[in-house]
This record gives sequence, structure tokens and C-alpha cells, in this order.
Amino acid sequence: MSTSRLAMPVVKVCSFTLALFGLSLLLPLAIAALDHSNNTAAYTAVFLICESLALSGTLASWDYQISALTPRHMFLITSLSWLVMSLLGALPILLTGTVSTLTDAVFEAVSGLTTTGSTVLTGLDAMPADILLWRSLLQWLGGLGVIAMAVAILPFLRVGGMRLFQTESSDWSDKALPRANSTIRRIIYFYLLLTALCTGAYMLAGMDSFHAVNHAMTTLSTGGFSTSDSSFAQFGDLGSHWVAIVFMMIGSLPFGLYVHSLARRRWLLWQDQQLRSFVLLVIAGCLVLSSYQILVNHQPPLRALTLSSFNLISVISTTGFASGDYSHWGPFAAALFFFATFVGGCSGSTSGGIKMFRFQLLAISLRESFSRALHPRAVTQRNYNGRKVDDAILLSSVTYLFVMMISLAVITLLLSLSGVDFDTALTGASTALMNVGPGLGELIGPAGNFASLSEASKWILCAGMLLGRLEFITVLLLFTPAFWRY
Amino acid sequence: MSTSRLAMPVVKVCSFTLALFGLSLLLPLAIAALDHSNNTAAYTAVFLICESLALSGTLASWDYQISALTPRHMFLITSLSWLVMSLLGALPILLTGTVSTLTDAVFEAVSGLTTTGSTVLTGLDAMPADILLWRSLLQWLGGLGVIAMAVAILPFLRVGGMRLFQTESSDWSDKALPRANSTIRRIIYFYLLLTALCTGAYMLAGMDSFHAVNHAMTTLSTGGFSTSDSSFAQFGDLGSHWVAIVFMMIGSLPFGLYVHSLARRRWLLWQDQQLRSFVLLVIAGCLVLSSYQILVNHQPPLRALTLSSFNLISVISTTGFASGDYSHWGPFAAALFFFATFVGGCSGSTSGGIKMFRFQLLAISLRESFSRALHPRAVTQRNYNGRKVDDAILLSSVTYLFVMMISLAVITLLLSLSGVDFDTALTGASTALMNVGPGLGELIGPAGNFASLSEASKWILCAGMLLGRLEFITVLLLFTPAFWRY
Repeated sequence: MSTSRLAMPVVKVCSFTLALFGLSLLLPLAIAALDHSNNTAAYTAVFLICESLALSGTLASWDYQISALTPRHMFLITSLSWLVMSLLGALPILLTGTVSTLTDAVFEAVSGLTTTGSTVLTGLDAMPADILLWRSLLQWLGGLGVIAMAVAILPFLRVGGMRLFQTESSDWSDKALPRANSTIRRIIYFYLLLTALCTGAYMLAGMDSFHAVNHAMTTLSTGGFSTSDSSFAQFGDLGSHWVAIVFMMIGSLPFGLYVHSLARRRWLLWQDQQLRSFVLLVIAGCLVLSSYQILVNHQPPLRALTLSSFNLISVISTTGFASGDYSHWGPFAAALFFFATFVGGCSGSTSGGIKMFRFQLLAISLRESFSRALHPRAVTQRNYNGRKVDDAILLSSVTYLFVMMISLAVITLLLSLSGVDFDTALTGASTALMNVGPGLGELIGPAGNFASLSEASKWILCAGMLLGRLEFITVLLLFTPAFWRY
Repeated sequence: MSTSRLAMPVVKVCSFTLALFGLSLLLPLAIAALDHSNNTAAYTAVFLICESLALSGTLASWDYQISALTPRHMFLITSLSWLVMSLLGALPILLTGTVSTLTDAVFEAVSGLTTTGSTVLTGLDAMPADILLWRSLLQWLGGLGVIAMAVAILPFLRVGGMRLFQTESSDWSDKALPRANSTIRRIIYFYLLLTALCTGAYMLAGMDSFHAVNHAMTTLSTGGFSTSDSSFAQFGDLGSHWVAIVFMMIGSLPFGLYVHSLARRRWLLWQDQQLRSFVLLVIAGCLVLSSYQILVNHQPPLRALTLSSFNLISVISTTGFASGDYSHWGPFAAALFFFATFVGGCSGSTSGGIKMFRFQLLAISLRESFSRALHPRAVTQRNYNGRKVDDAILLSSVTYLFVMMISLAVITLLLSLSGVDFDTALTGASTALMNVGPGLGELIGPAGNFASLSEASKWILCAGMLLGRLEFITVLLLFTPAFWRY
């Protein structure tokens, strides 16, 4: 394959993505214009940069067809589009003077687009509306990007066990392309609809329209940016917490199922093995933590149930809103929140984390280990969600686990070299790789902020957030010599 | 299968093991007698208990052949013999009044036999020689037990990927039995020889014969019990540290290779893929940590190299000796020691931990993921140490990783419920499951002691040490209904 045959289709797709991304800048631009803010110049400039880059890219790649994309193209497109959008998304934050360094701007943008939700900004409550909206929009777009990636790209690539969710043919062909396109179009409509519903629900719970829109965007995308330094603790009432609980859960479920249910006019959700186990696991976790809060920490029952469910679902769904500092709930809560960081939602959702289906595949493998130990010659047939699971899918999904653990170790070691203590390094690495948001400890815990970390730490965390969001192997593959040898 | 056909061969093998275990009590008994200590009564009583139990068991199971052992028998034998020896090994510690509670006695015995090396005893320096010797002997026997298990039992059971080390036939048959027996006999001779060599080396480095024998037993078994509360910090010279470094490494390598090299009069060690990677990894780790100590903490080079290598190899080999409190070496060292806890030595050694071959199998799986991502239809052939690796071996060794992680989460949560802080819970669970010894933090760190933990915490850690030592699935299988259904 010649260099241009590798590069041009990638440029074509990335230009298209970038053109759409650029359009989204019009929203904060409009808000800034209405507020007669000086920030309009920054948005206009970045808008023009995006669109002219997109235009040049489109013209340069005009003659190339995207119907002949190979896995190699798709890996490049995936990593490159996230990287480019992170850098361009950082520009408005830097050019409006919201932060003073490129590092902080990129950190905030990466944390936004990857729907992680860790922030380096303080004084959010007094920040211009256009900046708050831009941050929320980054998460909303990032959430949509992840769903689209899970529906249209990952099932065609043999990494991380996602091939389990491949719907029909095994290649990205002329047939698969329009099909994925139409699914994605329907998912976008549904995503918009859910955002509107969530906004309405927040308003009913007492938020003003601006807070409601912002939080709706960061709830459904399981992102976790807020309009206040105190995150959800700014809302004294429990009603808005319950709205968040419901929509964080909705954001953690497979979006493909929603549109299939609608299309076939049948309620398919509970038939899904992944969804069922995820919901039951979350309910069990919330009940355990609530009981602990009631029995050990003597909290009033309703408050305990609300805050336990809110904070635990916020971590499991990898949203990262906080309401109060659960670091002070005692060692059991700290340990539970630490391990909850790794769970994640369902595949095809906006959640990060290891994700439910991988735990289920590993449980299948464990059951098989048990039965083989007793009956060495027994032949077993593995099924998941009514589909046969072959060895390759099982192996690629456990390879994910191995790479995740090695990445966790490497990023923790690098962070600890850059000067933070062991707990901050370990929980910071976890929260970045799993795209959750808060870590544990005073510095980066639910009541803390990532601003005080060193420049080096922030860049390491940026790499971690992107690595986790793109499911590790998708990115790491680009660093193997074999990828570039053809 | 009738109950007696399941139980009796198990009783027969366990009785034989118990008879040998009982004999080992004669050693501390002799020391106590020479010292005119009151402890003689305790050893005599436990000796008689062991031998009469063994005799009754042997008589009851007289008519049963052990040549027809099924996997079910072997799983029961494995768990039961470790459990029985732990309980009987605790009796001398309790009956001599060394500790006041059964919990402490069992903790010390389990930590000994599993070669973990966490201790609840303080004032070791002033303790009677017979008790110190009994503790060292428990570790020495535990180390031998683990090697025997890895050579004669685990390769025949389809758990944890150990089938990779199966030498010939796939069943425990009339042919395999004498073969394994002769290998084990040769390993015992070699284990004795190495213990003698290590004792000699320690004496050359300046230890008196009693300290040398004790430390030789706990070094080679990668156990880590010492004769002093300050562990190796009692030896000011660096010479004894280097003796420990060499013999901890020897204890972490596959003992089967030593005897095969001797039998064939050829140096087979460096040809072994597992051994080679392990040695290189350890050297790399020691160099990194030494550089950090020299460059960041400004330690004198020789001292930095010695103490870094000693403490890091102590953790990687899962020995658990300490020399100074490396908790105070800064966050990078803490993170490095934490992750080093999980590495472990080679299979067929006395080490715990995940073990090198599993990392290598996972790396093979990762390479395969990379190549499949680019060439979906490529057919690959996996080889490890010149042997074909089938999917089943790969899957059972990654299932190990999954079960280890879940066990880590469960034991951390239980420990945190029993009242310790998050760091103590997490590193305590890790050090127990991986059979290392020290955790991190003031309480259970290298300068700490497990005495102050609650009774509940100690029992949880005992379960963790046994679970880790027996490679998880071997034990967990006994808790599945299918095991008991026949």
C-alpha cells in the first residue's frame, strides 16, 4: 500500500469529522455574542481553523473512496480524529484566557472529549456561560463519538472482544457502510431526544435552563463536568440527584438496543444479558453502600440511599459527578469506590471502564475452567446473548484486561515519578484510564481538582485518558513496527 | 463415585503427608531438649497427635490404591493437606505460649507454610531457639510442598495454565506416578543441598550457625521469616544481603530445571524462556530502582545497589525480607514495590505471585491481537519454550488473572470492613494473595507487624494466603456444587 493510499482515505474521514466538530463551535459563539463577550473572537478563529483544515483535507482527498477502508485505515482514523479534536477543542479554552497554559487547555479538552470529567478549572460558578457550554459540549460530542465508534468501527476490528457485537458481515464493505450509517443516524436522533428529556427533567427538579442543558449534556455522555466547583453538591435537593441517577444509568446502557427496540417496536432491553447483569450489579452495589451508610455511618435512610446511589452510579457509569466528599465515608467506601472505578457500563454506551460484557466473558471462561478441571474431555459450547463465543473473542477480551493492568502500572509509576504520592498516582491513573473523573485523596478526590498537578503529570494523564477511551490496543497498535510495514 | 471412594484415597495421601510433617517436629523438639526448655512438652504432644492421626488414616484407607487418583481426589488432597498442616503447625506456637490466641497461632502457621512471611510476633530477637526454628521449618517445608505440587499435581489439573508444564502423559497414571516420584526425590536432595550451601554462604558472610540455618531455610523457600524484628536490617554488612539476593533468586527459578540439568549433565537453565525473561526483568528493575536511589535520593552507589536489589528481589521473589523501611524511599519506590508484589517468580519454584510464564502467555496473546487486527485471516502458531500453546492453556492462565483480581477486590473490601484504612487493606490483600509478606504503610509495611490487626482481618488474610498459594481455582472449585455432584 502506498503512503497516499494509506493517508488519503484517513484524511477524508477526519476532514469530515472535523467539519462537523467545527460547526459545534457556533453554539458557544452564539452564547458569547448574546453576552457581548470578548470570547467571540476565539470561537470564530477556531471555527475558521477547523473548517479550513477540513476543506483542504477534503479537496486533497477528493479522488479517494472511503468504501475501501481497511483495518489499518480505521485504526488511524480512530486515533487521529480524537487527537485532532482534542487539540482543536483545547484552543477556545486557551484563546479565551480561561487557562494560562497549553497543558491545562489540552488537559481540559481531553478530559472533556474522552468524557472523563477531571478538571483543572476552579471558579466554575463565576465562569462565562460560553466556556461552560463549550466544556459540556465537548463531553456531549465525545459521548456521541464513543457510541459511533462502538457501533461502526470497533466491531469490525479484532481487538478487545468487540467483534462480539458485530451485526452482520465480517468486513467493512459497501453493504456494512450504509447500514452502520443509518444506525448511527438513528442513534443521533435518540441521543438528542434523551438530552432534551434529561434537560426537561432537571428543570422540573428545579434547575434553571442553562444549568439543566449543561448537566443534561454531561450526564447522558457520562462525562461529569459541572457548572460549579462543588459539582452536584450545589443542588441541595435530592430530586436533581435522582434525575442524574436515572440518566447516568441510561447513558451506561447500549444505545444500539434503544434504537433497535424503537425500530422493531419491541422492548428488547431486558433480554440483553449485558444490560441485565449491569443493572443488577448496580442495584446490589447501591444497596450495600446505602446499608453501610445507614448502619455504620448513621445517615438518615433516604439521604443515604440517594447519595450512595448517586455517587456510586456516578463512578460505575464513569460519569464522575460528586455530591459531597465520599473520601470521608470510611475505608470500606474508599475501597468500594476504587474498585467501582474499573467496572464501567455496557459496550455501545458512553461509559468507559472495563465494561460489563468483559466481566461476563471472563466469568464464562471461569465456569469453563471449573468444568474442565473435573471433566477434562468435556466439550463445551459458549454462548453470550444467544451468540456463539469463539476462543478468539474470549482471548482478545482478556488481552484487553492484561493491557489495561500493564498500562495502569506504567502510568502509576510515571505519575509517581512526576512527584505525586502513591495514592494519588494509583487512583489518578485508574480514573484517567477508565475515564471516570475523580480519584481518591485530598488532591484529586471528589472534592479536589487536578490543577495543582505538575505539567508532566497532566500530560501523562492526557495520554491515559485517550488510551483508555480508545480501548488501549487501538492506540498501541500504531506504535508497533508491523503497523507501518507494508 | 461413592463417598468412601472419594474420601479414602484422599485420607491415604494426607495421612502420608501428615506422618512426614509430624517427623519434622522432632527438630524443634531436639533443640528445646538441648536448651532444657519447657517447650518440649508442646512439640511432643503435637508430634504424637500428627503421628496418631496419620496412623489412623493409613489404617482406615489401607485397602485403597492411590494409583487411581482422579482430578477430584487431587483437588481435595491439595486443599486438605495445606489446611490440616496449617492447623497442626499452629499448635506448637499456641501450646508453647508464644501467642495467646488461636487466631495468632494459625496466622503465623499459615503465613509460614504458604511462605508468605507476614508475622504477628514481636520480640523475635529474644524468642527461644526452638520456636524460631519451627517457624523457619514451616517455611522450608511449605516451599518444598509448593515445588512438589507444581511438579506432581498441578500439571495434571486443567487450571491456571499449569498444564503447559506437563511432561508426558495427560493423566495421573501408573506411568506418571513413579516418574513424578523420582523427580520429587531428586528435587528434595537438591533442595537440601542448596539449603546447606546457603547456610555455608551466610556463615562466610558472618552469621553464626543458628542464624545462618534459619535464614537459609526462609531464603530458599522465598518465605521471609527472620530471627529479628528488624529482619535483615540486623545485619549491618552488605555481604549477607548479597548471599540473600543470590539464594532468593535461586528459590524463584524452576527447581525441575536444576535436576534436569544435573541429570543430563547439561546447563539447561538459560535455554528456558521463563527463566531468561525473569532474570532480565529482575535485573532491569534493580537497575531502575538503584538509579532512582542514587540520582533522586542521593544514596551512595554500592549501598543503593545492594539495598535496592535486596528489597526489590525480596518482593518480586515473594520472600518478604526487609532491610530498612522502603516506604520512606518516596512515591516512585512505593508504586514500584506495590506492582512488584504481583510479579512473582517462575512456575515450579517456591515463589508466589502471578508468575513469569503467565505474563509471557499474555504477551503472546497480545502480539496475536496486534497481528490479527491487521491481518484478520492470518493463522498463527503459538509456541512457548518450544511447545505448542493451545487456546485452552492460554484461557486457563488468563482466567487465573481474572480470579486473582476479583479475589483482590473481595479481600480488600472485607479487610476495609474489618476496620483498616484503604492502603492497608489493598496492600495487605495483595501481599497475602501473592504470598509476599509486607504491605505498605505504617501498620503492615516493611517496618510494621500484623499483630495489631483485628481477629477478623487476620482470618481474612489467612484465607487469602491459602487461596493465593494454591492458585485460587484449586480451592474455589471445592465451593462449586458441581464438585460434590457425582
